[in-house]
Amino acid sequence: MAVLVTGGAGFVGVSLVEALLDAAHEVVLVDTVDVPAGADRSLRQRRGALKIEKVSVLDRESLATIFGRYAIERVVHAAAITSGASREARDPARIVDVNLQGTLNVLEAAREHDVRRIVYVGSGAAYGESLYRFPVVYEETPSVPTSLYSITKHAAERTCMRLADLWSVDAVCVRLGTVIGPWERDTGARDNFGTHSQLARLAVRGEAAILTAREVQRDWVYAKDVAHALSELAFATRLQHRLYNVSSGAAWQQPIAGWCAALKSSYPAFRYATEDAQRKANIWYTDRDRGCMDIGRLMRDTGFRPRHLMAEAYSDYLAWMKRTPEFFEQMSGGERSA
Amino acid sequence: MAVLVTGGAGFVGVSLVEALLDAAHEVVLVDTVDVPAGADRSLRQRRGALKIEKVSVLDRESLATIFGRYAIERVVHAAAITSGASREARDPARIVDVNLQGTLNVLEAAREHDVRRIVYVGSGAAYGESLYRFPVVYEETPSVPTSLYSITKHAAERTCMRLADLWSVDAVCVRLGTVIGPWERDTGARDNFGTHSQLARLAVRGEAAILTAREVQRDWVYAKDVAHALSELAFATRLQHRLYNVSSGAAWQQPIAGWCAALKSSYPAFRYATEDAQRKANIWYTDRDRGCMDIGRLMRDTGFRPRHLMAEAYSDYLAWMKRTPEFFEQMSGGERSA
Repeated sequence: MAVLVTGGAGFVGVSLVEALLDAAHEVVLVDTVDVPAGADRSLRQRRGALKIEKVSVLDRESLATIFGRYAIERVVHAAAITSGASREARDPARIVDVNLQGTLNVLEAAREHDVRRIVYVGSGAAYGESLYRFPVVYEETPSVPTSLYSITKHAAERTCMRLADLWSVDAVCVRLGTVIGPWERDTGARDNFGTHSQLARLAVRGEAAILTAREVQRDWVYAKDVAHALSELAFATRLQHRLYNVSSGAAWQQPIAGWCAALKSSYPAFRYATEDAQRKANIWYTDRDRGCMDIGRLMRDTGFRPRHLMAEAYSDYLAWMKRTPEFFEQMSGGERSA
Repeated sequence: MAVLVTGGAGFVGVSLVEALLDAAHEVVLVDTVDVPAGADRSLRQRRGALKIEKVSVLDRESLATIFGRYAIERVVHAAAITSGASREARDPARIVDVNLQGTLNVLEAAREHDVRRIVYVGSGAAYGESLYRFPVVYEETPSVPTSLYSITKHAAERTCMRLADLWSVDAVCVRLGTVIGPWERDTGARDNFGTHSQLARLAVRGEAAILTAREVQRDWVYAKDVAHALSELAFATRLQHRLYNVSSGAAWQQPIAGWCAALKSSYPAFRYATEDAQRKANIWYTDRDRGCMDIGRLMRDTGFRPRHLMAEAYSDYLAWMKRTPEFFEQMSGGERSA
């Protein structure tokens, strides 16, 4: 019995596939892009069996073929366009297609092949403005989505729940917090490139980072913790709810300064300073400070506990960087937009 | 300069086109279905000029042609699938297509042809569960959409606002309450057939209506008042907000009993009774009692006042029934689903 992961070559996807393979699962990785440099090696050395299918979630026929080919028991649907403003202005129809019709296609294929559970990887962005209005958001906090990304992620999540009811399918939805960790890169589907990833790239190159004066307040969550939470939800015998926040549960203290210091300790040539009249910041920061996403529900209903708070996350991230130099040779920049 | 109305042959659409023609506007009616029997006569005798274009909002090329052919100054986008549960289980992809991609297509055509304002005809259904949790819903009340209809109408409305920002287009969205009035019929796009329309049909045929024991509490709004509100919003010089509730603003008292009595006075052969052990109800009722939609914002920002509360609405509806016998000869039943 296999686990199918859409968007499996993406940022969160690779960490999830690694975790599933470590748990000796057979994994069918579905994506339109190749896994990043270094990931193939990382994935092949693990216990489970990996199949890679280069297919779009918009291609219903190929999806049906894949679901027919493997004994898919569980699906984690993570394929999406993480759009920024410029793409939303330029190509809204494609964002709606991938994020919403793509989700329908995956749900339909899963239903036709009697999949036991579908995990929909939604986003904290679905809360929209509520993230900036409340210090903490719970799963019951109202959603006020404004960007097309948040609108489509919200709509797709609600659609999963609706069709789960109408079709008697077992579906659970998550809202991810702001993820940091290995494998983030420009795949053509991700417009907002994380602050940590930008800094990591400069550090590897021995270049200088010019930071903005302000720190960022955010309850970052490490990609391996996300993978852990998704696995728990995919395999839990019984779940009390259909929507779960996935985050570290608390804001990180001085995360950017801390990351710069950690990078400097491993990459001595790396330099960083705060912007001033002479030098403008060359790092794109995540947008406004947000409220924390409460993870009490996730912790109560599954065995999940955040294992990588800031120190553990940075240590693991640095170890991965050292282990995976080819990733940085291949990696190109992300579109800078919000 | 013309007003283009998508879904112009639909329930609300025909009343809106009548109102616009009465105000001597040139109207381009866009729809995939023909206007109902009796509507052609009704529309042709009015002051403005009417063009009918039988085109789907999914057909981007034809939309572009139409926008190129006429000098479209304002757009009212009312085309949608008003889906019930059975259609949502059967064909979710088409509902997403028409309600969301269709809206994108109309927005894009309007933008390319420098339309001065777009009015998006959304639905109170976008409030979702909030309609059943609160006695009154305001435009700022959180939305908790659950059906695919409510999810797509909510998403389309939010998408209008997002693209209005990104594209510097003037767009305003409305959420309609539960509409009653002339021209409601099965067009293939409307699954929840109104209680008043069902009773009207039985009355015209001289058949018996068996009612459920309970009355329905709802702030119905008469189709002509909706047309009035949409016209006000389409032509207002400046609007303070981008979202307006459109309703009568207050629950109607004993609306079903009142409508039956009104019908009986005009159609003496009509009989009605409450269901009992022998006779099951043959009228499909609108779903749960809902909170009222506040219309303070609409009244403050436009000249709108509800002109047809229950008595005026029923009187006007009966006059229309007498004047339009051919409508009832043609009319077929709606799908009965929720």
